[in-house]
Amino acid sequence: MFKATVIIKRRPTILDPQGKAVEQGAKLLGIDNVSQTRIGKYIEFYVNTDDKISADNEVKIYCEKLLSNPIMEDFEYSLEKI
Amino acid sequence: MFKATVIIKRRPTILDPQGKAVEQGAKLLGIDNVSQTRIGKYIEFYVNTDDKISADNEVKIYCEKLLSNPIMEDFEYSLEKI
Repeated sequence: MFKATVIIKRRPTILDPQGKAVEQGAKLLGIDNVSQTRIGKYIEFYVNTDDKISADNEVKIYCEKLLSNPIMEDFEYSLEKI
Repeated sequence: MFKATVIIKRRPTILDPQGKAVEQGAKLLGIDNVSQTRIGKYIEFYVNTDDKISADNEVKIYCEKLLSNPIMEDFEYSLEKI
């Protein structure tokens, strides 16, 4: 079995309105020094196989087809044998 | 200046309906081996100060007051001097 950790980020050239909104809230609370907040996803799951290559393939398909939006996001992942 | 990276996860005891939903989609696509998908947030931003302690404080307040939901989420962060 593997534990997979996936990080999904918007491409740097694409605006992040959610991050912008949170940052405006921060200014109102007196948190003045933060800038360029960008909000992505951090996803954890288990892959129920002991074969590294097939785990790798399955994670890649999961990321491409469901977890990330290929138009505007990039993903990276790591697998840890458990 | 510091670059901050924050990871926000739901507490392990709290259900993650979003992860459950994505996982059901995975089964329909033939991705059968994934389980216990949990979706958190991965947030990056800059802190415009050179003092490590005040950067630390500001990130902590930002996380507690805006980025995370203290009722059901935990956060961890790291700071990197740039």
